[in-house]
Amino acid sequence: MKTRNIRLTVAYDGTQYHGWQRQKNALTIQEIIENALETITDSKTTLFASGRTDAGVHAQNQVCNFRTESPIPEDPLLKGLNSLLPSDILIKNVCVVSAGFHSRYAAKSKIYEYRILNRASPDIFRRHYLWHVRAPLNFSVMADCTHILRGTHDFSSFRSSGSENRNPVRTILKCRVDNNDAGLFRLTFEADGFLRHMVRNIVGTLVEVGFGRISVKRFAEILESRDRREAGKKAPAQGLFLMQVKY
Amino acid sequence: MKTRNIRLTVAYDGTQYHGWQRQKNALTIQEIIENALETITDSKTTLFASGRTDAGVHAQNQVCNFRTESPIPEDPLLKGLNSLLPSDILIKNVCVVSAGFHSRYAAKSKIYEYRILNRASPDIFRRHYLWHVRAPLNFSVMADCTHILRGTHDFSSFRSSGSENRNPVRTILKCRVDNNDAGLFRLTFEADGFLRHMVRNIVGTLVEVGFGRISVKRFAEILESRDRREAGKKAPAQGLFLMQVKY
Repeated sequence: MKTRNIRLTVAYDGTQYHGWQRQKNALTIQEIIENALETITDSKTTLFASGRTDAGVHAQNQVCNFRTESPIPEDPLLKGLNSLLPSDILIKNVCVVSAGFHSRYAAKSKIYEYRILNRASPDIFRRHYLWHVRAPLNFSVMADCTHILRGTHDFSSFRSSGSENRNPVRTILKCRVDNNDAGLFRLTFEADGFLRHMVRNIVGTLVEVGFGRISVKRFAEILESRDRREAGKKAPAQGLFLMQVKY
Repeated sequence: MKTRNIRLTVAYDGTQYHGWQRQKNALTIQEIIENALETITDSKTTLFASGRTDAGVHAQNQVCNFRTESPIPEDPLLKGLNSLLPSDILIKNVCVVSAGFHSRYAAKSKIYEYRILNRASPDIFRRHYLWHVRAPLNFSVMADCTHILRGTHDFSSFRSSGSENRNPVRTILKCRVDNNDAGLFRLTFEADGFLRHMVRNIVGTLVEVGFGRISVKRFAEILESRDRREAGKKAPAQGLFLMQVKY
């Protein structure tokens, strides 16, 4: 039997799940897709993703891969998976890749987006996809902080405890804040990798800057301090989307 | 004690509810809000809405009113209600109105919007707020039908069985179809009143026109026939929003 390495691009609504990674006693996205693959390929299958996402975090384009001896072509595999998967998980693309491809180790960078709704009243129809922040945020001071974040830094200040002990240095390639008349703030981060809760810890601290409780200068000092206790609270999961993985 | 008549403007996500109207053995929006009012005013309260909405149907601005002897001012009432209500129901406005005002009988017209996503792949993040229609819809023939619908007609062809036996004549004041590059169709209907499932039955039939299965001429004949069996299937609940009630 010829073994193929197959890459999936997946969108999911993380609201109902305990994150990407398979766990005992908790429903995860990895488990749901692996079970569907097992049904279709008739053999136990392990998925490797570009990285885990936490409970409640969403993905527009998560990338994962698996090896299989099943001869099923790409298009029937895509349709078969989507017919088995629940309506909050969607396989967007199926592609046979070279034997050596690994979704995590081959990734050059990842893009996350964090969405904040900054207005008095909540949007009940997007309550699972936004962080609703009532008090007015100062857009321009938040945008000033993006210059501080860009580049290569030790991001220990924005790493949650419980991280595996490894290199806290990452390079933020792109960082920007956009907003619109409806009060929607989009914070975009592209980096060669992210530490545990790094985006949510940065966003929680940027919101403190937006409130005027932390100055831009102080924000730079917090990054410099490499001390998690200096930064703001972690932003809630539901505003965060994994947008793209670049290879 | 002075009795006041209070009008509420309410948004709700209908996904988790068996519609607006209180029922035995099923959770409804009316019951949830009445319970919150009872907690705040310390007396049993009955809400009168502009009309019921079905299970899974949403509202951006449902209007309802109730009479109370509680002296609580409008702003604390608004805040108190929202602090008690679940995150899928939002009181947007509280206003004391004249003693004779009744949300249903005083309504001059209502506006409903139906949203269809017409493209190959679904949008998992809006799956509860759209009808996903895969096959291409012909926008212009659907728009042609709006001219037929406008005006005063016997809408028996688009009335679901189980309606109370009353006048099937209604006046559609405005009717339009818009679409955009992302495949989103918005069908808007303003009428002096709506029969049971009228919007969803019209939309289901308009989609048949969009597929080319029913001609515009045939659509006019279906309306003329006053026979429910001639029309298309009822569109699903989740695409429908009560947008506005005019007084």
